[in-house]
Amino acid sequence: MKRVDMLVKAPHFYTMQGEGVGYKSGVAMIVNGGKIEEFVPLEQIEDYKADEILDMDHHVILPGLIDGHMHSCYNIFRGLAQDANGWMMYGIQPFNNIETRESVDAGAKVALLESIKAGTTTLGDYNTYMDDVCQFIEKVGVRGNLTCMVRDALKKTYQPGELYEFNDALGTEEFQRNLDLFDRWHNKANGRIKILFGPQAADFVSAELLLKIQKAAKERKTKIHLHVQQGDRETDQIMRRYGKRPTKFLEDLGYLDQDLIAVHLTDCTDEEAMTIARHGASMAVNPGCIGLVDGLVCPSLAFQKAGGNVALGSDQAAGNNCHNMFNEMKNITMMNKIRYQDPEIMPAWRALRMATIEGARAIGLGDITGSLEPGKQADFIAVDLNVPSMQPVFTYPMRNIVPNLVYSARGNEVRLSVVDGKIIMKDGKVLAVDEDELMKDMQKYPDELGKAASKEFFEINGPNVRFMEEDKL
Amino acid sequence: MKRVDMLVKAPHFYTMQGEGVGYKSGVAMIVNGGKIEEFVPLEQIEDYKADEILDMDHHVILPGLIDGHMHSCYNIFRGLAQDANGWMMYGIQPFNNIETRESVDAGAKVALLESIKAGTTTLGDYNTYMDDVCQFIEKVGVRGNLTCMVRDALKKTYQPGELYEFNDALGTEEFQRNLDLFDRWHNKANGRIKILFGPQAADFVSAELLLKIQKAAKERKTKIHLHVQQGDRETDQIMRRYGKRPTKFLEDLGYLDQDLIAVHLTDCTDEEAMTIARHGASMAVNPGCIGLVDGLVCPSLAFQKAGGNVALGSDQAAGNNCHNMFNEMKNITMMNKIRYQDPEIMPAWRALRMATIEGARAIGLGDITGSLEPGKQADFIAVDLNVPSMQPVFTYPMRNIVPNLVYSARGNEVRLSVVDGKIIMKDGKVLAVDEDELMKDMQKYPDELGKAASKEFFEINGPNVRFMEEDKL
Repeated sequence: MKRVDMLVKAPHFYTMQGEGVGYKSGVAMIVNGGKIEEFVPLEQIEDYKADEILDMDHHVILPGLIDGHMHSCYNIFRGLAQDANGWMMYGIQPFNNIETRESVDAGAKVALLESIKAGTTTLGDYNTYMDDVCQFIEKVGVRGNLTCMVRDALKKTYQPGELYEFNDALGTEEFQRNLDLFDRWHNKANGRIKILFGPQAADFVSAELLLKIQKAAKERKTKIHLHVQQGDRETDQIMRRYGKRPTKFLEDLGYLDQDLIAVHLTDCTDEEAMTIARHGASMAVNPGCIGLVDGLVCPSLAFQKAGGNVALGSDQAAGNNCHNMFNEMKNITMMNKIRYQDPEIMPAWRALRMATIEGARAIGLGDITGSLEPGKQADFIAVDLNVPSMQPVFTYPMRNIVPNLVYSARGNEVRLSVVDGKIIMKDGKVLAVDEDELMKDMQKYPDELGKAASKEFFEINGPNVRFMEEDKL
Repeated sequence: MKRVDMLVKAPHFYTMQGEGVGYKSGVAMIVNGGKIEEFVPLEQIEDYKADEILDMDHHVILPGLIDGHMHSCYNIFRGLAQDANGWMMYGIQPFNNIETRESVDAGAKVALLESIKAGTTTLGDYNTYMDDVCQFIEKVGVRGNLTCMVRDALKKTYQPGELYEFNDALGTEEFQRNLDLFDRWHNKANGRIKILFGPQAADFVSAELLLKIQKAAKERKTKIHLHVQQGDRETDQIMRRYGKRPTKFLEDLGYLDQDLIAVHLTDCTDEEAMTIARHGASMAVNPGCIGLVDGLVCPSLAFQKAGGNVALGSDQAAGNNCHNMFNEMKNITMMNKIRYQDPEIMPAWRALRMATIEGARAIGLGDITGSLEPGKQADFIAVDLNVPSMQPVFTYPMRNIVPNLVYSARGNEVRLSVVDGKIIMKDGKVLAVDEDELMKDMQKYPDELGKAASKEFFEINGPNVRFMEEDKL
């Protein structure tokens, strides 16, 4: 009789081991010391005495999902910045400068809550101020792959074609904030928190500061999380300043390597995306957000073809409106099928790998999480199959579970989440927080923020002003 | 003091009256005799004595959603037929001939349940056998706009280029089934059930039978629900048989008029779609299903530009994998933004209108349902705003509720549904049925159906065979 911490029984396990989905049945999963110890045939479980037995009848067990790129700081402005060309100018701009630290932090917690409730166990969050997020992640028990946003381009109104003005004092302050965050939080919360470096984008950060940040990241053996060639605005800035496109600029700067997580690549050609992949960098793609705010499908498929790892991300809720990896799995498949007019492009299993093992590898946590393998941390979720969206279940001649997870599940089917072998969500409720209190806290802010934003909202006069006048909101 | 059946209080009503979303607040909705009687200012509600008061704090009230086109008969095969080019041949074919009436009916009920739980109150279902669906709809209390599928093309294996063989006996039998269904069920269930005529498609039905069906439909003052130019296979058949494209064939046959609901238009040019709209026909578009099985975005936008009404549909769960109008609202906006690379295309409010008033008009129920207006039947739903996916709520300088309904809500936020003034779903549970029993009943069939399909599944050897071998399902 072997004593272990936890024994998990379920009819279906998708371990994501190997090149496929690592399907197993007729087994139980043994968790010990926060790690996955082994899978044992059901007929041998009598050999184990577990402190906790999770009997997940009519559930499927998956690795906890990975959100490779999100800005929870925008959640306080959920749904205020879509359906507009020029998202930055006509969408988010009126709300960008009126936020308070308190309102942003209150919104961020609800963004993380939404994400966790939909099965995400590793949060790739990326804001200017991150201490509150770190504390929340520590408390809730999930994993954070967290980045502090750094820029030295002054925030002010620029004329079309005008180069952004770099400011040393701003750059020094923001860089120092990232360094301090690293010192305070890296490897804290039992190793669940990793701190990355976050130069915002090549147009918002001077070449000097980009290199300084890179040096600091390499000394600390952590990754750089950078928006890359995210639109024609960036391409235009870099072309004017350096006479080349952003990908080439970053290549020449020595930025494209295995320590880089390159986000979006919205304005990259397939060839540029492949160049970035071939240098060993990874990518975070945010299909819902970029589809909604730009009407575009980013070149993640070309990136994968060149051998690169790609994580999925939910980005931000001002313009994607939600943080839900089930949504993003559906988006990445549907949007690529449409881009290439080919239903065989990006089948369901590939999206599930992106949301788990490929995502984990892309953000540098491939040895720790993203699959259910002996020796890895026990990060997993249980998805209820006994709901209309997942019914019926076929196992022969083909299983329909993975397609239904990707194309039908909504996120609410996730009933249980475990991180580092500890239950952090049960029966769909996150245990360490009062969900209603978090939402109530956020609801204190919309009235005052709305009033503060109204002058600029009407001055900028984007589509949403017209929609309000025309009774369309 | 006026005695009424029901008084509905909520902070936000989207009535869909007028050209926008018909937003109202500070009012209560009075329901009497199954109909919406009026909206009254909250300060006047003391004048009413209601048998039932629905106090929907932190909820938004919408018209019940309209699913304009669905085949619940495919739900027993949910998730078995995607990620394959040639959906009919390599996706659904192995499962097409092994179903039983019992298994199809058991699956259909769960499809309808899924749809209702996600806020649909009018179901545009379209199968060969419909009696069981009619009974279910009568029992549950929702509205059905129901069609019986009719064809006279023999179901057999055709060689490439071979014309389908029409068979009089088959056509007579199937047409009679539709006539009988009409006699048994049209205007039954307190008028909640309407029966339409369902010639399957121009390639599957001879011109003679098409005309016979049209005559019968016009005599009975009901609509025709027809798949139109749904792929290159259909276009090829019609070109060979009649020397013209399907839209032109239907135009010359006199089929394009205000009594036609034209489905898909997958292979139509924008010009052909506009021709159909200009003749007064309406359209049902199924963005999720056609995106998934064909990788295409159908020309619903051109149809709308020409003045046509377009309903959204969830189509079928073998290849769309779900019946959820929140999903389809998101799909129609995202996919059109991508098709046209323009984030201003198809803003949120337009999708909400398609799922409500425009959908109701498209399927011929615009005078009965689809908006909350005095004199219309009281079909409405309450969506909880006190959930992370709908938080925070801004009301000034813009409301973010409609964008969050379309881009973030998953369907589970719907807590209450009322049809004809009667509560049919409360706290997310459909009242007249045992949801678990319905799912349990469906689960009896996958094992035997899977065994029966396996020989053809392996013979046809589509992508899913390889995915099973490669551990990708």
